[in-house]
Amino acid sequence: MCRIAAYAGPAIPLENIIICPRHSLLEQSQHATEAKLAVNGDGFGIAWYGEGGDPGLYRDVLPAWADENLTSLCRMVRSRLFLSHVRASTVGGTSRQNCHPFKHGRWTFMHNGQVPHFPQIRRALEQALPDELYAARQGTTDSEMVFLTLLAHGLDTDPEAAMTRTLAALGAGPAPVKLTCVFSNGHDVFAFRHASHGKAPTLYVSGPLDNGGRAFASEPLDGGAWDVVPENQIVTLGKPAVSQAA
Amino acid sequence: MCRIAAYAGPAIPLENIIICPRHSLLEQSQHATEAKLAVNGDGFGIAWYGEGGDPGLYRDVLPAWADENLTSLCRMVRSRLFLSHVRASTVGGTSRQNCHPFKHGRWTFMHNGQVPHFPQIRRALEQALPDELYAARQGTTDSEMVFLTLLAHGLDTDPEAAMTRTLAALGAGPAPVKLTCVFSNGHDVFAFRHASHGKAPTLYVSGPLDNGGRAFASEPLDGGAWDVVPENQIVTLGKPAVSQAA
Amino acid sequence: MCRIAAYAGPAIPLENIIICPRHSLLEQSQHATEAKLAVNGDGFGIAWYGEGGDPGLYRDVLPAWADENLTSLCRMVRSRLFLSHVRASTVGGTSRQNCHPFKHGRWTFMHNGQVPHFPQIRRALEQALPDELYAARQGTTDSEMVFLTLLAHGLDTDPEAAMTRTLAALGAGPAPVKLTCVFSNGHDVFAFRHASHGKAPTLYVSGPLDNGGRAFASEPLDGGAWDVVPENQIVTLGKPAVSQAA
Amino acid sequence: MCRIAAYAGPAIPLENIIICPRHSLLEQSQHATEAKLAVNGDGFGIAWYGEGGDPGLYRDVLPAWADENLTSLCRMVRSRLFLSHVRASTVGGTSRQNCHPFKHGRWTFMHNGQVPHFPQIRRALEQALPDELYAARQGTTDSEMVFLTLLAHGLDTDPEAAMTRTLAALGAGPAPVKLTCVFSNGHDVFAFRHASHGKAPTLYVSGPLDNGGRAFASEPLDGGAWDVVPENQIVTLGKPAVSQAA
Repeated sequence: MCRIAAYAGPAIPLENIIICPRHSLLEQSQHATEAKLAVNGDGFGIAWYGEGGDPGLYRDVLPAWADENLTSLCRMVRSRLFLSHVRASTVGGTSRQNCHPFKHGRWTFMHNGQVPHFPQIRRALEQALPDELYAARQGTTDSEMVFLTLLAHGLDTDPEAAMTRTLAALGAGPAPVKLTCVFSNGHDVFAFRHASHGKAPTLYVSGPLDNGGRAFASEPLDGGAWDVVPENQIVTLGKPAVSQAA
Repeated sequence: MCRIAAYAGPAIPLENIIICPRHSLLEQSQHATEAKLAVNGDGFGIAWYGEGGDPGLYRDVLPAWADENLTSLCRMVRSRLFLSHVRASTVGGTSRQNCHPFKHGRWTFMHNGQVPHFPQIRRALEQALPDELYAARQGTTDSEMVFLTLLAHGLDTDPEAAMTRTLAALGAGPAPVKLTCVFSNGHDVFAFRHASHGKAPTLYVSGPLDNGGRAFASEPLDGGAWDVVPENQIVTLGKPAVSQAA
Repeated sequence: MCRIAAYAGPAIPLENIIICPRHSLLEQSQHATEAKLAVNGDGFGIAWYGEGGDPGLYRDVLPAWADENLTSLCRMVRSRLFLSHVRASTVGGTSRQNCHPFKHGRWTFMHNGQVPHFPQIRRALEQALPDELYAARQGTTDSEMVFLTLLAHGLDTDPEAAMTRTLAALGAGPAPVKLTCVFSNGHDVFAFRHASHGKAPTLYVSGPLDNGGRAFASEPLDGGAWDVVPENQIVTLGKPAVSQAA
Repeated sequence: MCRIAAYAGPAIPLENIIICPRHSLLEQSQHATEAKLAVNGDGFGIAWYGEGGDPGLYRDVLPAWADENLTSLCRMVRSRLFLSHVRASTVGGTSRQNCHPFKHGRWTFMHNGQVPHFPQIRRALEQALPDELYAARQGTTDSEMVFLTLLAHGLDTDPEAAMTRTLAALGAGPAPVKLTCVFSNGHDVFAFRHASHGKAPTLYVSGPLDNGGRAFASEPLDGGAWDVVPENQIVTLGKPAVSQAA
């Protein structure tokens, strides 16, 4: 279980979401309150978009709270759209390649949840990828695989359909599949919560912040107005406003 | 607050203390039960003694549970006397130089506790060191400074007196000084618990283990016989047996 | 191009090969003389065998010369059979998963060379692996893939045949395939040099060292008697003596 | 011996100096041509100034060429004034605290050279610092000490005088003191070359770049007009133009 936060709106310093709020992502990395694991110390990552072109990516295997570079970057770098993630790995080694967000072209993706039967389906999922996406695989996580499968199934043109097809590709296993993910193409930020059984990992969407921007977060960042992101539908933060599509 | 474990006795794989027990040091790095902080993810370290000469030292800034090298080393390396530490830093950067144990010649030292007024006395303590120990300072922690001060006050010849003089050198501050430390010269392992007010951080000493060795640990490693290390006296694990000196 | 060294014989401290010789592996990491690149700073690794069971593995992404832990380990750890590697990556990220040696069960493997058309054959090679080896893949290097392909082709029972089949599986590309590799099952150390065109990367085998052990190294470690390992045949360092099989 | 580059002018992506030029700082980290050591793989760092306030700082112990984050940051981050450094350590451990640039308030500092008798004068230099600067010392390098000594001697108000006094404080040793340093207060970038005997480490200043900005670099970044920075005088890149003061 990990913690995630994302923002879209007028450009702000990254620290306004990641560090400064009372219950910022950095705070959640040490004191998460709505997760089984209170600590998310197995690496972190940020993807942020500038005026155009590909997003920047900054990931490391240290706990977020131990990285002095992160503090500096979050203070200096401003962005109109960014994703951030702190990781609590359940299995496997800690490497930058396994840290979220993942990036492919203009797309970025991060995930909180698990596909418990992933070891059984990993090979088939990888075989099903087109060559370009197969070659793009860098790590060994189920999360990166979900991202590449979404891309293979048309994330670029129809996120809803891509998600439906990806869930079908994951199939069912003995334990529930849980996916709470946030992803972006640089224009919009998409969020999706799903659990095949039981409850999906938490995700909230803010009302308009002081500057008109909006945010997603695993746990509300402050005492403002935060709504639970509904399950099984893609919620979008975009330039116009928040739209919801079933 | 950190977690520590140490062993003296017939040579055993390090994993017998650090990894295998039900409540091993590695387990305590993620699920400490007798500390304010359950997680100790700000680096770790091991010092171990061989047949003769200086001890080996292995320290890194990753959380102990994220380091695959550690698992391998603890399985392969056998030692008759070793110290191990997982760190939860309260202030300052995470660097190898600030990870315990510290080493100077044949001596090694690790610490759980804090000297809250250290910023006020740091300069005076450093000035008081003889040149050789001044040059040996590598990091910025209060813990390393306590070690060097012990050495300056005769740790090599009279650990009791060195501890008394070091506590005097630290003096009193507005908040309690708390020192639970374990240190060794390669022959014996010494432990000391102290709090100027309130309770010292926990430390337990085992009864004879299956192989006749004995151990210190912040929390008992298993369901065997573990006694609380009394405060304000140096407890020694040595080749003959456990001796206690007021 | 990387630098490698391996040893088999009476147990010695690792430093006797890796650090102490005049032209040790550590020295070669900064001042290689028989390679295009003089510096091998993209990580390093050691695999060593104890009395029985699986080998230990220690790998990190720092340059070997910057890792204080390495110095300590090489001084303290003794082994009767070990492999060591310093890496100069030509492409791709630096991660522990991509550092040599690779390990699978009792087998370890390290490599100096390249398969230039690897991007074109990677997917087919991975598909050809049996499930167990497919699941064991952790990184993205051609070197790890050569190792897994050797295992898939019977390394355990017939190293010669496995090598022949692996070379066939790699096939030919527009640029020469170059493989100089050293691998072990814990009993013997095998070396193999091959270039589809031109010269294979260097590898030397020592005469009997002072203690009767023998070593392989990319460049002679000292002024003693070192012979060039011939190309296209597996050379073995084992308990009886050095044997050569066509 | 290290390699350094700095820039002042209209805001540009950091990569325009650090990565893109034919003989960029990144290229110099692997293939320096005017230094004894061709490789500078012992960490790197960047300090960059935004609209106001303290500079950002990004330092790590990996070789610059192995850090994927660096590539991303240099592409995304724009700055009107920045310093960058790749390190080849001659002695001591590799830690972030020992990586250049160093930062204190608005000041940043980086250095190429050495004070060979530093071990003999270190304690006296540290004692001479005022309390605030003494407490600010984080690492163990001679370079950081030169920076703090400059600050103690009035860098903020009179860089020329501070440099003269700092050279006096360093004094003479059996081997030549060599200082080529670049530092900034966020308004101007200052450069200084000095050798007590022999030649100071190289430093060049560019003519006006395409966008009107100018740069310092250990080796010319491209085939444009680069002048040798004269020894023993502070050369300044500022908003008006390059000024030189004896």
